[in-house]
Amino acid sequence: MPKIVDHRQRRAEIADAVLAIVAEGGVSGVTVRDVANRSGWSTGVLSHYVGGRDDLLQLAFRHSFWLSGRRLAAIAEDTGLDPIERLVRILTAHIPLDAQSVAFSRITLFFYAEAASSPDKLGREMINYLASWRSTVEEHVRAALASRDQPTSRAREIGDYLVALIDGYASYAVLGSNLWDTGDPTVQPPVRTWVDSALAMSALDSAHH
Amino acid sequence: MPKIVDHRQRRAEIADAVLAIVAEGGVSGVTVRDVANRSGWSTGVLSHYVGGRDDLLQLAFRHSFWLSGRRLAAIAEDTGLDPIERLVRILTAHIPLDAQSVAFSRITLFFYAEAASSPDKLGREMINYLASWRSTVEEHVRAALASRDQPTSRAREIGDYLVALIDGYASYAVLGSNLWDTGDPTVQPPVRTWVDSALAMSALDSAHH
Repeated sequence: MPKIVDHRQRRAEIADAVLAIVAEGGVSGVTVRDVANRSGWSTGVLSHYVGGRDDLLQLAFRHSFWLSGRRLAAIAEDTGLDPIERLVRILTAHIPLDAQSVAFSRITLFFYAEAASSPDKLGREMINYLASWRSTVEEHVRAALASRDQPTSRAREIGDYLVALIDGYASYAVLGSNLWDTGDPTVQPPVRTWVDSALAMSALDSAHH
Repeated sequence: MPKIVDHRQRRAEIADAVLAIVAEGGVSGVTVRDVANRSGWSTGVLSHYVGGRDDLLQLAFRHSFWLSGRRLAAIAEDTGLDPIERLVRILTAHIPLDAQSVAFSRITLFFYAEAASSPDKLGREMINYLASWRSTVEEHVRAALASRDQPTSRAREIGDYLVALIDGYASYAVLGSNLWDTGDPTVQPPVRTWVDSALAMSALDSAHH
């Protein structure tokens, strides 16, 4: 029987190899040779799937978004969580605390800067990704507010506030400055406190706004 | 009398020309030729001061930090402001609302990504800059809390929270998604609300933390 090659699976393995290198050494550490060594595929096989280093990064970027989406979906579908806890977990998943989210944050920051300096290149994909991330957070903010019988009219604004906050923390972490770092690696960032504080804005007078 | 060349002044003019181009078209729009046209100096004079495009960007980056520092110092020294208002203005100055802060945010995001992908290149300068920005915000948070007779023990944590928040908003704005955008360009971001919300964390139970 001829061997059936699962191309999607192979692309995912290549992307995983790129992301593992990014998690350890950053985007600058990615070379076609290293990805070949890490994935176990020859550079010849790699070149069948991707043209060069830029394509490898783009493949990894899309795969990273897909992994992140799957992670968020798993949290969203966990019926054992109340809406507040679900929002806390959605946000916490975007803070680089493990290898997968470190790779995600590093590659996202890299493509943020690429998109900001060359809006055509990946610009549309970044815009779609950011819009989807904002909508996800807004939806969970709305559910969290409703579960506390708080007005939901500012769900979008509160969601965007949390998006800015979490992405800001993630960017600093990528740069080696964990803003919540207390010197004790077992101390988790106080995401629950941030969420409580943000949700309380729903009751603020609109004159403040 | 021989003409006396003020080299510092000339470097500042070159840096201003780079920043004007960055504010309009992003980092990708910067070429030595465009900077020559914009500054009024020949490419020959430019090459006397800077080696090439990378050096131009680095010069502009440092000049941008210097301009930002001067702006923050002017706010800090304004004795007509109460400590809360002073903190609000310090933070607002870091949101890209005018050409100067747009250029600052764009070039900072560019060098964030550079520093993240090649820690040696400008890494030390970025670390020093971030440390200085965090300390500035912490100092003003401490003064704001003291002016309200609130405990200052969490000034560092609240300062870092505001740093993450403001830098997150600035990054999104650079990418063309103003998170506070209401469709009405005269509506300012509600920085006062964010500050009130963050300062209120000083009174939260440490069990939340």
